[in-house]
This record gives sequence, C-alpha cells and structure tokens, in this order.
Amino acid sequence: MTSSEEVGFVPGTGEGQAKVRIIPLGGLEQIGMNITAFEYEDTIVVVDCGLAFPTDDMLGIDLVIPDVTYLERNIDKVKGFVITHGHEDHIGALPYILQKINVPVYGTKLTIALIENKLKEHNLMKNTKRKVVKHGQSITLGAFRVEFIKTNHSIADAAALAIFTPAGVIVHTGDFKVDYTPVFGDAFDLPRFAELGKKGVLALLSDSTNAIRPGFTASERTVGKTFDAVFAEHKNNRIIVATFASNVDRVQQIVYSACKYGRKVVVEGRSMVNVIGTASELGYINIPENTLIDIDQLKNYPDEQTVLITTGSQGEAMAALSRMASGMHRKVTIKPNDVVIMSSHPIPGNEKAVSKVINELAMKGVEVITEDTHVSGHACQEEIKLIYSLLHPRYALPVHGEYRHLVANRSIAMAMGVPKERTLIMSSGNVVELCEDYCKVVDQVQAGGILVDGLGVGDVGNIVLRDRQNLAQNGIIIVVLTLEKYSNQLLAGPDIVSRGFVYVRESEDLMDDAKNIVDNAVADCLDRHVTDWGKIKNIIRDSLSDFLWKRMKRSPMILPIIMEVE
Amino acid sequence: MTSSEEVGFVPGTGEGQAKVRIIPLGGLEQIGMNITAFEYEDTIVVVDCGLAFPTDDMLGIDLVIPDVTYLERNIDKVKGFVITHGHEDHIGALPYILQKINVPVYGTKLTIALIENKLKEHNLMKNTKRKVVKHGQSITLGAFRVEFIKTNHSIADAAALAIFTPAGVIVHTGDFKVDYTPVFGDAFDLPRFAELGKKGVLALLSDSTNAIRPGFTASERTVGKTFDAVFAEHKNNRIIVATFASNVDRVQQIVYSACKYGRKVVVEGRSMVNVIGTASELGYINIPENTLIDIDQLKNYPDEQTVLITTGSQGEAMAALSRMASGMHRKVTIKPNDVVIMSSHPIPGNEKAVSKVINELAMKGVEVITEDTHVSGHACQEEIKLIYSLLHPRYALPVHGEYRHLVANRSIAMAMGVPKERTLIMSSGNVVELCEDYCKVVDQVQAGGILVDGLGVGDVGNIVLRDRQNLAQNGIIIVVLTLEKYSNQLLAGPDIVSRGFVYVRESEDLMDDAKNIVDNAVADCLDRHVTDWGKIKNIIRDSLSDFLWKRMKRSPMILPIIMEVE
Repeated sequence: MTSSEEVGFVPGTGEGQAKVRIIPLGGLEQIGMNITAFEYEDTIVVVDCGLAFPTDDMLGIDLVIPDVTYLERNIDKVKGFVITHGHEDHIGALPYILQKINVPVYGTKLTIALIENKLKEHNLMKNTKRKVVKHGQSITLGAFRVEFIKTNHSIADAAALAIFTPAGVIVHTGDFKVDYTPVFGDAFDLPRFAELGKKGVLALLSDSTNAIRPGFTASERTVGKTFDAVFAEHKNNRIIVATFASNVDRVQQIVYSACKYGRKVVVEGRSMVNVIGTASELGYINIPENTLIDIDQLKNYPDEQTVLITTGSQGEAMAALSRMASGMHRKVTIKPNDVVIMSSHPIPGNEKAVSKVINELAMKGVEVITEDTHVSGHACQEEIKLIYSLLHPRYALPVHGEYRHLVANRSIAMAMGVPKERTLIMSSGNVVELCEDYCKVVDQVQAGGILVDGLGVGDVGNIVLRDRQNLAQNGIIIVVLTLEKYSNQLLAGPDIVSRGFVYVRESEDLMDDAKNIVDNAVADCLDRHVTDWGKIKNIIRDSLSDFLWKRMKRSPMILPIIMEVE
Repeated sequence: MTSSEEVGFVPGTGEGQAKVRIIPLGGLEQIGMNITAFEYEDTIVVVDCGLAFPTDDMLGIDLVIPDVTYLERNIDKVKGFVITHGHEDHIGALPYILQKINVPVYGTKLTIALIENKLKEHNLMKNTKRKVVKHGQSITLGAFRVEFIKTNHSIADAAALAIFTPAGVIVHTGDFKVDYTPVFGDAFDLPRFAELGKKGVLALLSDSTNAIRPGFTASERTVGKTFDAVFAEHKNNRIIVATFASNVDRVQQIVYSACKYGRKVVVEGRSMVNVIGTASELGYINIPENTLIDIDQLKNYPDEQTVLITTGSQGEAMAALSRMASGMHRKVTIKPNDVVIMSSHPIPGNEKAVSKVINELAMKGVEVITEDTHVSGHACQEEIKLIYSLLHPRYALPVHGEYRHLVANRSIAMAMGVPKERTLIMSSGNVVELCEDYCKVVDQVQAGGILVDGLGVGDVGNIVLRDRQNLAQNGIIIVVLTLEKYSNQLLAGPDIVSRGFVYVRESEDLMDDAKNIVDNAVADCLDRHVTDWGKIKNIIRDSLSDFLWKRMKRSPMILPIIMEVE
C-alpha cells in the first residue's frame, strides 16, 4: 500500500468547506438493486431505484428491493428519484418504494415510459409525478442541480448525471459504454465530460461491470453485421433471434436485416412486445410498414420469409424461446430447418439454463448461432480510462459491479493518477462525507435487501429461508399425537406423516422402524410422567433424528405436534 | 440432410457378418455418469462406471448413479469393467454398482489406485478383483480383446481403448487431449492410432466436450510458465494455488515453481491430500525432499517462502479455499499480502460460486490471478480432426458432452469424410447394432439415473423431488384436528403450524385469518355431516389454498392431518 506522503495527498480537516454526503443504499454487495442517496443539508436526491434478482439460497423469493428506512426517516428532505436508465436493476423497485417515498421521478423519455409501464401495472400512475428530462437539460432539486448527459448502453436513452452540489460536481456515469457509432441517437457526450473535467470534478462514481476486461467494448453496430451475414447465409431457413427485450437497438438491427432480406417480423414474448411497443410509439425504433406481422399470421408466409424476435435468451424457463425449445409453445413449433441466433451472453448463473435451451434446440435439428451475436453494454478498461482522463476527478468511488470489479475500477483510477487515498470502495449503508479536503465514511445507516415473495414484502426473512433450505434438502417428518388434558393419557397417535423425505411405498421398513422409535419415545415419556410438552417434543425429535441419521445419513425437519383433548 | 445416394453409402442387410452391440447406459443426456456396454453373444464388457452430480432441481441429492438393470439381467455375460481414467464421472459409481455387478475392474496404475481409495472407503477391497494394465497392453475378456492406448488428459494415466471384436475394431477415446509436451509420461500414442487406422477401424467413439471450440487445446506445460511468471513477480507474497485435486501434473508444476523459487509447499483439502498422496506413492509426481511441509508448520516459515496448494477452485462451499476466503478455515488466515491463483475455469453452473470466493478474497485485499492459469483436458476441433484422420473409422459415434457438443463432433466427422448416414448420436438405453453393413439402433433397454441421498440409493424419486421443490418455494402449512371416531365430533383443533411460509410473529393477522378460514371449513363439514376424511381434508386444503393465493399470491404445501379418538 502506498502511504499518503508518497502520493502527495494529506487529507485536511475540511474546515469551512461545504460537505456533501453520498449514501449508497444498495448495489454494492451484489449486481442489481442500485440506489444511492446524495445529501446536503435539507436536500436528498436519490439516483436510481432498482431491484435485485434473488440469489440461489433465497428459495421461493421473486425479487429483492432495497431497505429505504433511511429515506423514510428523512422523508421531508427527499426531493426526487433521478433515474439513469430503464433497466430493472435501476427502476424495478420504484413501484414498491414509491408507496413509501412518494416523490417525483425524473428521467429521459424512454426511461420514464418504461417506468410508467410499471406504474400502470401497480396502479400508481395517478399518485406519481413523472418528469421527462432531455440529455443536456438540468433540473434543480433543493440544493442540487442535476444535469443529464448522453451516454451509450444496452438500452436506449441512458444518461450519466452531473450533480452540482455546494461541495463540487459529482458525476455518476450510470451503466455505460462508449459507442462512437450507436444504432440510434447520439454518441456519448464526451465533449461535455471534457468541459466538466476542465472546470473540476469533485468525485466520479463510475460503472465497474467490465473493469476486469481489457480493451474496448465493440459498437452495437458490429452485431448488425453478424445479423446481415447470418440472414445472407440462411436464405432458405426460418430465423429466430432471442435477445433482451430492453435492447431496442438490437431489435432495430434485426428489423433492418429482415427488411433487407424481405422477411416479415414477428415479435414474441410479453416483455418484448411491451418494450418494443413503447419504443415504437416514442420513435426509438423504426419498423417500416408491412414488416411486423402477428404471430397468428406466421402460417400465411413461407418459413424463409419470416423472422421471430423473442425473449428467452437467458434460458428463462417461462420465456418464449424456452417454451419453443421444449415444444411447449402454443403458436410456434420448432422445425429442423430453423436457425436460432442467441443474441446475448449468459448472465453469470444462467449458463446451465442457456445450455439446456441450446441442447433442446440441437435435438430438434436446429442450428444455433452464438458467435459474434452480442456485445456488452458496459465499458471495458480503455473506455473507463477515457472517462477518468476527461473528468480527472478528485475522488474515485467505483460503483456497479461485484467487489472484484470495484477493485479493478479503482486500479484503473490509480493508474490514471488518482492517489489510492482518494479512492473509496463503498459498502451499502455507508455514509460517505465528501469535501475538497477529504472523502471518508463518517457513519452507517440501515441498508440491505427486503425480500418480495408473491404479494408479501418483507414477511420472509432468514428464519423462513433457513426452513425452506432445510425442507428443500431433506423434506419434513410430522409426528402428531393427541393427549388428554389432565391425565396426559395418549388418546391418538403418534402418527407419522412425511413429505419430501422418501417415497413411502418403497420405504415401508424404514417408516415402520421410525414409527417404533417414536412409539417408544412417547411411551417412555408418559411412563415417566413427563408433562412438559416442550420436553416431549424434544425427546421425539431427538430420538427420531438420531435414528434417521444413523440409518440414512439424512436430517429431515422433524415437527412434533401435540393436540390436547379436555 | 444429404441422402444416402449422394454420399455413396447404402446400408446392406449385414447377412453373414458378425454383429456387435454398443449400449450406452448413461453419459449422453448430461455431462457425467459415463458407462457403456459392449456386447457380442455371451460377452459384455463395460467401459467406465461414472457418477453424475445432481442438477439444480434434484434438491438434497448427493449424487446420481446409472441404472444398470440391463447388466443385472445379463450378469452372466458381464466380463469386467474397463476404465479409461480416474475422474469421478468415469469411476465414481463403481462402489455402488460393484455391489450388484461384482466383476473384475481393469485400468492403468493410477486409475486403479484411485478406484482402490474408493473401495477402501466402502469396505469393498476384499470382494473386488482389480487388475492394472499398462499402456500398450491388451486384456482378453470373452470374445473381446481390449488394448489400452496412451492418451493425454487433465489426469495422469488416461487411456483410449481399442476393442477388438469379431465385427471389427472399435476405438473409444475416453476423455482426451493431444499434448505433445506432457508434464509426466509419454505423449498421446498417435502412431498406434495410425496403425489401427491403416488396418481398419469399424467405429470411433470420441470425446466431444470441446467439439464446439476451434483450434487446439494448449499443452499443460503452458500453465507451468504462468506459475513461473507469477512466482517471479510475487517474491514478497505468500502464494495460494487452487486447482483440481486430480490434476496431478498441475500440482507437479506448482511444486516445480515452488522449488525454483525456494518455497515450501503445503497441500490442503482432503481430496488434494488423498490424490497427491497416492500419486506420490506411485511415482506420478516428483516432490523433492524437504519441500513438503505440514500445514501446522506454516507458521515457522515467512509467508514469502511458502505456497499452499488447495482444493476449492470451483467455489465449493466446504472446500479449503472457500473456507479460507470466508474466514472459516481453522489453520489458514488470509492476509492482504496473499496472492491467489485460480488454476481452473468454472465448470458450467459454478460461475457464481467461484465469483463469490474471488470477491471474498478481494475484500480481504488479496490479488486473485485468473488469466492463463488453466488449460482444458479435452480436445478442441483440430485435435478431434487429427484423430478422425488417423483412424478414418467406418462409423462415428460421438460421446462425452452435451447434445450440442455431440452434434459438433458429428459435423467434424462429416467434414473428415464420414458420411452422415454412418454417424449416429446415441441416447442412453439405445441398443446400437454394428457390422460392416450398418450401424443402427435396434432396441431400447432401461437406463437412467438413480438418485443417492445420504445412504439411500433410489429411495428418492420424482414425487419426493416434486415435494421438495414445492416445500423449497413456498414452505408448508399443517392443519391438525382430532375427531371422535363415531360421533365425528371435533375434540381438538384445528391447529395450524407452518414452516418456511412466513415469519409468523410478523404475520399474526394473516395467520389469524387463515385460522378462521380453516375453522369455518371444518365447522361447515361437521355441520353437513361430512364423514369422509378425504373430503374433509380436501375442503380444508382448497379453502386455505384459495385464501392464501388471493391474499398473498403464494401456494404453500397444505397438509391436513386428522386424528381419531375412540
């Protein structure tokens, strides 16, 4: 570690300097759930409000939203949500959080439209103020002015934010890449970044997702070339392209290739239909007339004159492509002559699901194309360097990514001349105070994930999850017996019922032996006049548990239930 | 599809020709569980006997072994197991299967030694005949002669098999790569393959794992260069290398680098200690005297003079590296100055677990090196072509890999001149009949996976798994009540107990309402004099289920239990 002397930075006391606070409430311990509060005196502005998808150990959980207790406690200060782009990990928690923190939401046109789709679903349109902001425009929120700056990403209309605070300018990149030849709209507004850099940037919070990858992320247009090549090569096949619903530019390029080769386009999958509908209405995608056909019209065209654009590129079990691959799709039957383009890379954790779909397609004789069919939406090392070189921020606070990615981003910052002491890897809940003189964690507030299961928000916690894990691994054995209230005489049972343990009909011996063990345990308790039901339950649990471990090396959950009859 | 006319192959009737049968009993629908029977009249020889690891939906299952009913029914014909190499997916089921099919096991020296480690654990040494076969040697088993041929793989002593049958020679590559500069022992015996090819090969079963990857797999030695470079660059750090326990050559190279840079070596992790112990005894690894130290001696050496070789490169939760990373290892505490080399690629499905370990290490300040630290043990496309070009088999039957890999291998075979009609992608349970004139599926036998959970083999089936999945997603609600036998009067209950559903203390209202629903359902049944307990249970289940879905959008398992008191 380099000492502060060596790098020439001695933190001062910050006396007389304005101090701003950055409080990440999520997004740092995992991918997703991005939400960061910026605070100065009576002003809090919140950047993004995303959800996270459950990790493997969160059994039965649908999604995870951030704990915003800190915002609730400071509700009077909160001026609004400022959203960088319309991906789930940046907007997905809004319908839940807005019910507690009802403040205006600011974003670019497509971003606000995608948020509105969610608000409609949750019946929140009436009560939520939304404001569309253009790139280059600023909004004033309390003590802050927030400027939206054009960036590129795997969804249209992404923005970086320059937050003008009394302590200085803080730039938050959101998720970004630098695409010099974007499919739609302008390239990254590098000149504005250069301008900000010249005037002085206090801190940069920049996307770290690809910070371990050297080089540059290729332009979205390179994928269009692959599409053209595949369409040119497969003039006698039906073509099916699976990609992310939100990647409007990707869909645009498929439409371009389809038009070029005289094919009709079918859009399939609920989220794909929704996003493309919205993007089309707002002019973010250009679909020539007579190109789009309904899925029911497919049969009216020869296969080689059609292309399907579908969800399911991540192998999601319920998505359209998976249903096609497994023969469960009601309207599309896969044929050996089909060509499927997987236009995405598996997100970590989805590799096996994606392989499963590819294998199922291969079994149906389909050629599956996966090479050069995707580019990332996140900046690689050279792009991150470019941003640091334009902004040369005083402090570097890497965001968006796993811990190793944040570390890699910090290394880039250091290579670009930010002394290590002026870098900070934040944790969720940190209160980071920032001024010319220093940047440090000064406090800690409540932060973390709230589990959403069905309509229940926060009613499933660690104890319930631990029970689910135990049930999942070993199943449950329930022992019921009925005792007479005063005499403690056994009136019925003990009966044994199991679920998820063994297939009872094939394990009759085992279950008979288990029954004997329980019978003896109960008889012994009653003989010894044990009247404490807690004790009786423990004795049943322990004796059955011992027996099953010795016999089977398994530990199902054992649940004794005693009923009482007066 | 090319017609048989075009490719000049018209299958004949096979009249007067000897016919051999190939019966894969596993290994084709998934990675792992490799086992293939070769049959001719009264002779059956079985190649490999591996296990598979459970898929994500096999909750609580420890491992999966093949269903060998076909072998049991033909026990008199079975002459022996011939094993290609000592990986779990080729030997792991032996301790289970040998208990039913007690025939001799043949393999090279290290392979047999690793099998013996398993037999000892299962107390099967006495009853199992083993025979060590050298590369180049043949054994005669009934109507077959089986020759072991030197190959290369990520474990030492791998062999391909040339099975001389009355119908012709069948070559089974096992898992292989072509390494011209192996770390230990000889290179792939390509001359012998050339010789067999000249004489004529009826069929080739070849490893497809990397058949979608172009080019050549790099030599194991290239990893040694990375080790040297990392050791040279980090002379002031302790170095920890995580790799597969069975990759003896990899460990050898770490030891070489350690010696070169004057470091003591600690081997950590149960399987690592076992395999390296065995390999060392047999002379498959050369560890100079005074190099190896016990883990307890670590404290006696400066960090920069030590290297730890450990298990856990796949992020396995209980392996040594994971325990170190999470601070749970009893003897090794990770320090910020440590350097960790991850000398493996994540096996599909393990990506997130590996990332977790890397992130935990990064949080402790450790530099984690993952570039150029691993090479595959499987042949890429150019190597597979080489094998086809040497053997030019009449029939190509790709094995080892997911379906898409088998398809890719078949494409290579076709590119190398095997007509499509003489290729066959087999499924487990297929009975493939083979002679000069044809190669086709003539029958189907029982095959599939048997689930092992603790000591239970096959007592967990689909019903139990479905229950576990349901329990895992939503938990369970148990409703118990006691009725009087003749009057059907309610003596106690209904009581509601839940596990894995909600945190009851925070959901009192919900549980109270649920109790009311059940009370009413039971009261209604008794009022209407419903005496069929099945009906009462159904009514309880349906009413509670409806209530919970409407209120919570959740479907826990609902288990009504009725007790009877006379």
